[in-house]
Amino acid sequence: MAIVVQKFGGSSVGTTDRIMAVARRLIAAKERGNRIVAVVSAMGDVTDELLAKALAISEEPPEREMDMLLATGEQVTIALLAMAIHAQGHEAISFTGAQAGIVSDGSHTKARIQEVRADRVMEALDRGFIAIVAGFQALTPEGDITTLGRGGSDTTAVAVAAGLGAEVCEIYTDVDGVFTADPRIEPKARKIDTISYEEMLEMAATGARVLQLRSVEFARNHGVVIHVRSSFSDMPGTIVKEADDSMEQAIISGVTHDTSEAKVTVRDVPDKPGVAAEVFGRLATDNVNVDMIIQNVSEDGTTDISFTTPKEDLVRARRAVAEVTEVLGARSFSVDESIAKVSLVGAGMKTHPGVAALMFRTLADADVNLDMISTSSIRISCVIDAAQVQTAVSALHEAFGLAEGLVMVETSPSATEGGAL
Amino acid sequence: MAIVVQKFGGSSVGTTDRIMAVARRLIAAKERGNRIVAVVSAMGDVTDELLAKALAISEEPPEREMDMLLATGEQVTIALLAMAIHAQGHEAISFTGAQAGIVSDGSHTKARIQEVRADRVMEALDRGFIAIVAGFQALTPEGDITTLGRGGSDTTAVAVAAGLGAEVCEIYTDVDGVFTADPRIEPKARKIDTISYEEMLEMAATGARVLQLRSVEFARNHGVVIHVRSSFSDMPGTIVKEADDSMEQAIISGVTHDTSEAKVTVRDVPDKPGVAAEVFGRLATDNVNVDMIIQNVSEDGTTDISFTTPKEDLVRARRAVAEVTEVLGARSFSVDESIAKVSLVGAGMKTHPGVAALMFRTLADADVNLDMISTSSIRISCVIDAAQVQTAVSALHEAFGLAEGLVMVETSPSATEGGAL
Repeated sequence: MAIVVQKFGGSSVGTTDRIMAVARRLIAAKERGNRIVAVVSAMGDVTDELLAKALAISEEPPEREMDMLLATGEQVTIALLAMAIHAQGHEAISFTGAQAGIVSDGSHTKARIQEVRADRVMEALDRGFIAIVAGFQALTPEGDITTLGRGGSDTTAVAVAAGLGAEVCEIYTDVDGVFTADPRIEPKARKIDTISYEEMLEMAATGARVLQLRSVEFARNHGVVIHVRSSFSDMPGTIVKEADDSMEQAIISGVTHDTSEAKVTVRDVPDKPGVAAEVFGRLATDNVNVDMIIQNVSEDGTTDISFTTPKEDLVRARRAVAEVTEVLGARSFSVDESIAKVSLVGAGMKTHPGVAALMFRTLADADVNLDMISTSSIRISCVIDAAQVQTAVSALHEAFGLAEGLVMVETSPSATEGGAL
Repeated sequence: MAIVVQKFGGSSVGTTDRIMAVARRLIAAKERGNRIVAVVSAMGDVTDELLAKALAISEEPPEREMDMLLATGEQVTIALLAMAIHAQGHEAISFTGAQAGIVSDGSHTKARIQEVRADRVMEALDRGFIAIVAGFQALTPEGDITTLGRGGSDTTAVAVAAGLGAEVCEIYTDVDGVFTADPRIEPKARKIDTISYEEMLEMAATGARVLQLRSVEFARNHGVVIHVRSSFSDMPGTIVKEADDSMEQAIISGVTHDTSEAKVTVRDVPDKPGVAAEVFGRLATDNVNVDMIIQNVSEDGTTDISFTTPKEDLVRARRAVAEVTEVLGARSFSVDESIAKVSLVGAGMKTHPGVAALMFRTLADADVNLDMISTSSIRISCVIDAAQVQTAVSALHEAFGLAEGLVMVETSPSATEGGAL
């Protein structure tokens, strides 16, 4: 019998009624002849309520104790879900992250899974039980409880699927799958039937919030097939797996956007060796994540350095940059929080020139100014004014024929002039 | 440095403000030069809220999953308490029952501690931390979470104290200590300064709710000194320890009462060998706890059998007795829920005759009718009408001079006629 891992997020288990509904879905999947493992998150607002209690006590609670606190959220859900399955006449057994053999490093609040010792879960399946595993949490080799960061239950599900050699890891969400763009801002966005790990990684890294980035990395490294699908229907969703010939050969898989970052610019930095190292060394020391970096061409012996960083790191970033500005004798620095990053992702870029050119022309025609540009072999990202996100996404979605699932891009010979790719 | 274990119940940690207060108390104890372990229960109503969720899903939730659910309550408290200590500038580290090495058997919802492997807690103390342990919960050797039954955090505290070789296990409550009677019904009740394990066991078993019976057994078996004291003051409370010459030599330590039981009577049972075995064998099979048993003198070849049982077992008891009545050809059975058990407890009974006589005479003078009587070497219990509890307790408290801490009972030569002792 195939092993199927099904993951349900906080809103899917937000009330006892919804937990009963998830139980019915699990039982139905079992009755179709599968061995079933459920991975679940904390109920709805439980995590926020726990956070509020912690913040009532301490402004900066120790991270080890935050993990101890937050891990109770999933533990409540797994117990209630096991009860719900029993109440419907089937056998189930719940496991905390520790009991399910999920071992992580000791980076509290953002731990990384190192290993899954799935013996107990496998034994429960062998005995005919539906096994229920708490998402989001793990145990260090020293026996401390950790949590895996926002969206960590996705990674738990993929890791458990890898540990069990599951046929598929189904991630249930409130959308129908992975789309060619965010359907909330692009109504013509089309559900993608299959997508490669590489493309899904780029989409997750550039704003597609449907899967935690780390879960996709884990799936790629262990060859776990992910099926992203809706909690509210039985329609097939999006399959994420190794690229193969059976996949649709779209050059561009999707357009993503991200408004969670801010841009910081340091002006008139002396243009001498070691300046960038000084700036970004200091940011790294202060635990500021940096995404895109641009250094302008030097002029009169000075230059401007810009970078983007998550808004949640901005307090630390301002402090670090203020000091570095003084140390380097730069003129000033500025912060722009009203930026957005728009990205095109597609494995076909590697073999089809002209994608960058068409992207830049499309944005120019839509009167969208480009502030920063960065690329990978299967992605092009542009920083633009946040107010123009919808315009940019729609224009790109249209220009690359994403609504229709076009497999080729028409390029004119001159189109490549506009871009690096 | 002495190791001191301090246990705080659910009302002491019922709000984040109260958790801050407990943190201050722990820090103060540490600053007096002790190594401190805190054992805490779930916050106030948390356990009831979790139970309500479970019952919304299932009328009879599996006990393993109930334990999984309820154990989250203490886990929340330990994390918040550790944060509260950190917020006040001291170091603390929290441990679940499992992490604290508390190993129990697999009797879910009423597990018994088998062993405490206190290495991690000891290591935390060695590093100068205040160690915080979740009460009420343990782990089986197979790795399942269990809970220890009502009042189980007391047993956790005593077990941890035993495992660490602590100087004392302080149990903080909302009363000032153990009293000669329940102060709510006997205003003259006096706080007892020291009491032996044997007497405390009898008092806990007969209605004194200040300590879980199991915790006193555990303390006796491992020689742990318990100090029952108030959360609201620094006054000394009651020391529970091995009997020795320094203790006050009261013949009677206290009078307890218990209205949680009901009496079941089976009438006109054929008086032949094996009848009692049939009745109580069946009750045991159905997991009905039986306290006192009385069989009347036989008359016309039949007899009456009465027993008391906790009201919470009454549904099962009725079912079992109805069947047994039919099987044995007894006439009928009846249930009386308005009974009370009043008990005198005192190690001095062993050496001072006449206690029973004075007890029965006192109750007779107060017009209290005795329905059943049972004794141990240091206890006499009478079943009476529940409506007369206060009258009986007050009369006995007065007759045995408990308010004044009298050490001798005046007995007339004829006083022993009235009783077995």
